[in-house]
Amino acid sequence: MEYEILDIDALGRIGKLRTNNKELFTPNLLPVIHPYNNLITPSEIKRIGFNCIFTNAYILYQNEISRFEALKKGIHQYLNYDGLIATDSGAFQQYMYNNDDIQISSNDIEKFQEDIGSDFPVILDLPVQPEDDLKIAQDKVNISLLRANENIKRRSKECSWIGPIHGSEFPELLKKSTIEMSKLNFGIYAIGGLVKYFLNYQFRTILKILITVKKNIIPTKPLHMFGLGLPQFFSLAVAFGSDIMDSAAYILYAKENRYFSLSTGTRNIEEMEEFPCNCPVCNNYTPIELQKSEKEFRTKQLALHNLYISSQELKTIRQAIREGRLWELVEQRIRTHPYLVKAFKLLKKNHQFFEKYEKSYKKHGRLFNSSESKFRPIIYRYNWRLHEFYRVPKNANFLIILPELDIKGIKSPSICNWIEKINHNSTITRSLIHIVFYSGIFGIIPLELNTVFPMGQYESINHWEFYKNSYSNIKKYFNKNIKNYKKCAFLIPKTYINQYSKTVSFKERNLLKTIEKLKFKYNIPMESFDLIDEILEFFKDK
Amino acid sequence: MEYEILDIDALGRIGKLRTNNKELFTPNLLPVIHPYNNLITPSEIKRIGFNCIFTNAYILYQNEISRFEALKKGIHQYLNYDGLIATDSGAFQQYMYNNDDIQISSNDIEKFQEDIGSDFPVILDLPVQPEDDLKIAQDKVNISLLRANENIKRRSKECSWIGPIHGSEFPELLKKSTIEMSKLNFGIYAIGGLVKYFLNYQFRTILKILITVKKNIIPTKPLHMFGLGLPQFFSLAVAFGSDIMDSAAYILYAKENRYFSLSTGTRNIEEMEEFPCNCPVCNNYTPIELQKSEKEFRTKQLALHNLYISSQELKTIRQAIREGRLWELVEQRIRTHPYLVKAFKLLKKNHQFFEKYEKSYKKHGRLFNSSESKFRPIIYRYNWRLHEFYRVPKNANFLIILPELDIKGIKSPSICNWIEKINHNSTITRSLIHIVFYSGIFGIIPLELNTVFPMGQYESINHWEFYKNSYSNIKKYFNKNIKNYKKCAFLIPKTYINQYSKTVSFKERNLLKTIEKLKFKYNIPMESFDLIDEILEFFKDK
Repeated sequence: MEYEILDIDALGRIGKLRTNNKELFTPNLLPVIHPYNNLITPSEIKRIGFNCIFTNAYILYQNEISRFEALKKGIHQYLNYDGLIATDSGAFQQYMYNNDDIQISSNDIEKFQEDIGSDFPVILDLPVQPEDDLKIAQDKVNISLLRANENIKRRSKECSWIGPIHGSEFPELLKKSTIEMSKLNFGIYAIGGLVKYFLNYQFRTILKILITVKKNIIPTKPLHMFGLGLPQFFSLAVAFGSDIMDSAAYILYAKENRYFSLSTGTRNIEEMEEFPCNCPVCNNYTPIELQKSEKEFRTKQLALHNLYISSQELKTIRQAIREGRLWELVEQRIRTHPYLVKAFKLLKKNHQFFEKYEKSYKKHGRLFNSSESKFRPIIYRYNWRLHEFYRVPKNANFLIILPELDIKGIKSPSICNWIEKINHNSTITRSLIHIVFYSGIFGIIPLELNTVFPMGQYESINHWEFYKNSYSNIKKYFNKNIKNYKKCAFLIPKTYINQYSKTVSFKERNLLKTIEKLKFKYNIPMESFDLIDEILEFFKDK
Repeated sequence: MEYEILDIDALGRIGKLRTNNKELFTPNLLPVIHPYNNLITPSEIKRIGFNCIFTNAYILYQNEISRFEALKKGIHQYLNYDGLIATDSGAFQQYMYNNDDIQISSNDIEKFQEDIGSDFPVILDLPVQPEDDLKIAQDKVNISLLRANENIKRRSKECSWIGPIHGSEFPELLKKSTIEMSKLNFGIYAIGGLVKYFLNYQFRTILKILITVKKNIIPTKPLHMFGLGLPQFFSLAVAFGSDIMDSAAYILYAKENRYFSLSTGTRNIEEMEEFPCNCPVCNNYTPIELQKSEKEFRTKQLALHNLYISSQELKTIRQAIREGRLWELVEQRIRTHPYLVKAFKLLKKNHQFFEKYEKSYKKHGRLFNSSESKFRPIIYRYNWRLHEFYRVPKNANFLIILPELDIKGIKSPSICNWIEKINHNSTITRSLIHIVFYSGIFGIIPLELNTVFPMGQYESINHWEFYKNSYSNIKKYFNKNIKNYKKCAFLIPKTYINQYSKTVSFKERNLLKTIEKLKFKYNIPMESFDLIDEILEFFKDK
């Protein structure tokens, strides 16, 4: 198996997985199908665009007829599906239904998966339950590791085994499971035991687990998450490092008349008058027609729609990764439920880790569209680098802080005019003056850096949403650099020329409050002025 | 013409417009077509789901052959379209291209529209330009009003005339134009002169104009906005009161290879590898195939896709209105551009107006998914009503403020337990105690109101996003009601049982800060305690 990373954004990766002469692009979803009882055939799933499905070898094995047939034909011919096939071992049944009477040995079920020609078989692991205490969880992780080792010794064929990682809410255990599994040769690593959190909408817990694993896993293999099927969660999971997911949600929800939607969340079709979607199902039927149709037909159509929406969202996510806009997408998607927003905020606690993977340059300027935009790794990186590496120009005695306007830097006629005045002034030698901008979202941006990505190429919601953030960034700059300056002046203009070429009044009154706080805190002459000339006079005064 | 309002949410209205035995549901978009030079035929547009199109009578009139033919056949047969047809008068050409050589009289072009059987003809108005000064703008509005009056006298057929409203950024003029036009009999009222703002992304200015008109227009007729075609703006425009829009954006953008997307904004197809959409175009072609195809074919396919997406978004919006979730949808959609967020915040300045139209009950609990959720009219209404109409129970000497938890009210085992203790205590007579909750988003919620919609049925992002809001709501409650109480106690428990039945620590430390501020401000004994028993002892103490 080969896994080639073609592009990244956040922790999301466009990857090309190649095995048995077939390809799978990640991030992706593997729809789960029953091995012999499906409303939607595997080839219908393929037509929607899914090149890998997930089925259950344990259920197949339990049924003598199907077991025999699958062994005879091989799983691909048995399912009449020429894409990739992953198979589960029965551990999920044990986990989901606390089913302890699973009477199969890991040897039998693992060999069976090899024999039917599964592309991605799973070892028989022992998932940790959310309610397990540490002792039980440790035992389960150890047994799973033992079985993983046994599996490796036993393997008789070349196939890409999936290696499950466990540890639930115990970070140290999770770390151990991840590190130990990373040492063993698996094609795909997969986090197990998440579904019950998922059904409870505990997205934050799921992401905490994911990020712990992500920090410790070898990065050259895809990371799978067992059983996460709601499309409104996909982009967040991908941004936090999930490469592959599998789910039966599309059909399970359909059985309960539930219709996937990315705009306002999952809906019962009985509440719907119009289908807000252009997929073939929604173009062919109205909600009322489906409501009135036979149960089986309705379920199938809803399941097809749910798959179409899932596929669409994966394309959206892959496209966002290529465009470097995954965070923008995530900030939009999390608006379908407050718990998604809460989960997203884990970004803040892990900004150092996310920063490492952030691209240093992207083709487009950034859009900061929500108050959560302040957590973006690029902002953290800017402030961290400014603090670590930036040196104030030699001889710079006088600091002028200009406000950032709706047009950034010298593209703004007002800013251009101010800088012109400073450059050609006859009061203070130009080299003694250092010009920086006060940016609501980035904090201090020295003029020299103001055209560097992304400080010169962004649009943002009202700066003052980020006030706390930017004030602490200014303090950080002052703490380190204020000793270089003799005097500091803020320009608070009465008016400026906005992007529509209109002269408008400058309304950022919070800036005055900030200056008062800074004056109190730092012991150098610091004032605010309406005009550049006044600033220069202030610098001249002894 | 009949216009029946079937449902509302925010200022959005599901309306059924009936004229000439045809129906149009609002909110809706009228795709603009050229009268004789179209890549997409009117019947193709109809098949996508648009039951009304907009074409230009002026261009039709200018071409002698087409004029003659349209007069002979009637506009419906001429365009081979059996839906509703609105026609423009040439004013837009004048507005858009500052084209002063339009040599047609209002008499001629208006009569022509009647003669070809337009369902919705437009009078020849004189749009105000963004750069017009007040004097010029006034003159234009007066001329348009004069022509509207003349039009009414001249009408020879029953058709639903569209009456344009102007005033640009002059609110008083806009108000005058709206009120005067409202007095005249038009089927549809329409705001003109917006396109140039739209092209500049001045969404806030557009909504300001819309809301001024909306406050003054007669509510029984649909309100149209001329020329707003980006689907990411539709939901915001509808929430602020737009019933109908028209646009040629679907084809104009397509000509520049631009692909509509609701998830990450409009894209050039040269930047795309996958189409994140399930419409027939996107299911049939890849971006690369379209990139390589003939210009005309590509433009047509992109325009079809752009129409499919527009239609999908209108369905999404209508569905959101029916479900009472239009604000939730808007809060998601505005994340495609910061200027949409800035525009959305006009809600705050107009909350009294929005409150009037807010339903008092909705079928589902509310989701407060972003920091902008605090502007929702329902929150404003709650606080306003609490302030105006709420009376503290008689004899209530002692105020207990319980924190709101992740489960609301007595559904929470912890809250249930606290109330139980208060109800069965032997220290203080129960009727002397008044229990209220401290809610991060609503402020103070008296126990008696805690199951009333929507205070008992909501999920929210972290309360402390709304801290400023809720603190000012508490102060409002205290200012009015604190005189009723002798003592006030906050419960700040060490732990509580969360929605997952786990005992977790109570971390809302900001609450302690709030209490300190309140103690300083209000002159009654006020303390915070870990336990209900301590509170009761505090009340007992003389």
